[in-house]
Amino acid sequence: MSANTVLLDFSIEPSRINDELSRKDIVKVIKENLEKYFGNLKMIYDMLVDDGYMCIFNDSSATIINVRFFNEGLITINIEYYKKDNDNQRISFESSRQLENALVKELNLLHGQTLPALDRGPIVKYFPTADERIIEYDIDKVLFDKRSEFQKIQIVHSKTLGNMLILDELQNIAEADLIYTETLMQRGKEDYSGKDICILGGGDGALLYELLKENPKNVVMLEIDDLVMEACNKYMNSICGDVLEVRKGDNFEIIIGDCMVWLDKYIKDGRKFDYVFGDLTDIPISDTPTGEIWDFIRTILEKSFAVLKNTGKFMTHGNGASCPESLEMYEEQLKKLNPTVKFTRDTAFVPSFMEDWIFYQVAFEKH
Amino acid sequence: MSANTVLLDFSIEPSRINDELSRKDIVKVIKENLEKYFGNLKMIYDMLVDDGYMCIFNDSSATIINVRFFNEGLITINIEYYKKDNDNQRISFESSRQLENALVKELNLLHGQTLPALDRGPIVKYFPTADERIIEYDIDKVLFDKRSEFQKIQIVHSKTLGNMLILDELQNIAEADLIYTETLMQRGKEDYSGKDICILGGGDGALLYELLKENPKNVVMLEIDDLVMEACNKYMNSICGDVLEVRKGDNFEIIIGDCMVWLDKYIKDGRKFDYVFGDLTDIPISDTPTGEIWDFIRTILEKSFAVLKNTGKFMTHGNGASCPESLEMYEEQLKKLNPTVKFTRDTAFVPSFMEDWIFYQVAFEKH
Repeated sequence: MSANTVLLDFSIEPSRINDELSRKDIVKVIKENLEKYFGNLKMIYDMLVDDGYMCIFNDSSATIINVRFFNEGLITINIEYYKKDNDNQRISFESSRQLENALVKELNLLHGQTLPALDRGPIVKYFPTADERIIEYDIDKVLFDKRSEFQKIQIVHSKTLGNMLILDELQNIAEADLIYTETLMQRGKEDYSGKDICILGGGDGALLYELLKENPKNVVMLEIDDLVMEACNKYMNSICGDVLEVRKGDNFEIIIGDCMVWLDKYIKDGRKFDYVFGDLTDIPISDTPTGEIWDFIRTILEKSFAVLKNTGKFMTHGNGASCPESLEMYEEQLKKLNPTVKFTRDTAFVPSFMEDWIFYQVAFEKH
Repeated sequence: MSANTVLLDFSIEPSRINDELSRKDIVKVIKENLEKYFGNLKMIYDMLVDDGYMCIFNDSSATIINVRFFNEGLITINIEYYKKDNDNQRISFESSRQLENALVKELNLLHGQTLPALDRGPIVKYFPTADERIIEYDIDKVLFDKRSEFQKIQIVHSKTLGNMLILDELQNIAEADLIYTETLMQRGKEDYSGKDICILGGGDGALLYELLKENPKNVVMLEIDDLVMEACNKYMNSICGDVLEVRKGDNFEIIIGDCMVWLDKYIKDGRKFDYVFGDLTDIPISDTPTGEIWDFIRTILEKSFAVLKNTGKFMTHGNGASCPESLEMYEEQLKKLNPTVKFTRDTAFVPSFMEDWIFYQVAFEKH
């Protein structure tokens, strides 16, 4: 079950909708054209609004259609109805485009646009890119949906991307995303054999699983949310193997806890690593590098470099290539570190993000 | 200028909204939470609908909010307001998610979803995948917008994909899509040097431009729509070079005309090619392989094979990997050809389609 929402919009010469008579004619033409698809419509409400006019129609099957005129020259049509799982759409994409083209032609409008129908219901399908554009995924099943002490955890199935981990309603990683992990770890460019490695976060297990294929001396993973690991161990084995099941082996260990606390302990103990991976929250998208989340990121960087050997590297994911301002702010944080660091960037198109993502490799400037 | 449309939806135990008192309480909580972002709201309309209930609020700035309850357990909230180019959003994505989470918690709802805000206006940004999922592109400029005798032609600028050709409101090719042309022509796998080639369609010029780099004996391109070529020659030079400007060279010629007519002429004259490229309309997405468009595709295939040498190949694009039924129907058409043909498939992720696309290479079974 879902609500189907079909949206169309049009531009029009403003004078034509500010004039009441002309507006009435336009409403009449819109109604007649809608009726070709929905049968007889009844106008159940209309009013003048500060910025224009709106009216509402419904048909005999409770399809509700809002038509709104904005004085500055825009018309929106929002069609909404209830759709059972096996019902057909009441108006197909092709038909809504025909409706759009007929209105543009008949009313001599300046532009028309039809959005593909939005399907709104318990299977969450819409996620944002880094710059908050809408993407609809071909999700057909929710496999896991629980809230931990820390976040909302969902695993859903996408027809093209496999199972996907969703944390607090943001895409995190999908079975199709090996390239994400390989770019994060710079497979083929970094040599992990015999190395001491610390992963901050990484609850999906993919990074640990891939690193263990490269014969490291030891990997310790510090993940706060046991429920994420439980979910991924059940539904994401193609990317995490059995590492979240066994949790501990000859050369690795998963510790359930706050990485801040553990980093402090390592600093106190003088424990050092060849690599620290920041596999925690994405860089926040905000206008100024302030607030809790940037403090958190700065603290993570400082503590990570405090447990790195002189020759060590901090490896992390940044943000979408569509958010250059956010990437720049992260780089500003890097430039403030003491001792000074140098960094390189790499980019990969991550299938489940549907965009290019930036990854950072950070090392001490002098060693 | 644009209309901003923010959509949220929720699932709820059906009995709670079929009961009038309980529904009134829920409406009250929704109103109170909306008022945190929009200030005082006035309910301007409400009614019982066959499948539930709906009410409409507005604020002092003409934000119109439709709240609808569907008896089977779904609530939709549609927020819409007018936004000038430099205005901020009245409710950010982050805030709408906070609103969603507050309502889920306070009303103990079964699911909540917030769609990234839809920005509706003269710059068309929303296009469908092959299976009609919505994708929002980072389009910031319309460079060309005209209707030819044959189709609606637009060239828009995307921040990440470069200029994009849009034909009849469908993404066609972007500057970032070299992989499309290279997969269509199977660069590195086919040897075009010294070969006779015919392109059916190909008005964006990209295929002709790339083929000419491979020293063919001759390429003839049959394109019906001069205006497409004019637009691409002006705005898509990074993919078509100067071929649409010069139109004719020592080893190539662009003919403006109906490829059907020209294929008939070649058949009559006994002219034969090593390669024919089908760079016309995509395979239609329809339930049964009937109707004008499949007839057109069948005719194109028949005529193409009639002008191919025994050793020749027909190369074409298929459809999105998300539409296996449509691909299967195309393959059914191939299997019906006489003399019989054999085919191979290749797949590429096409940046501007944001999905995997299938390409076909078809040859006579025996030669």
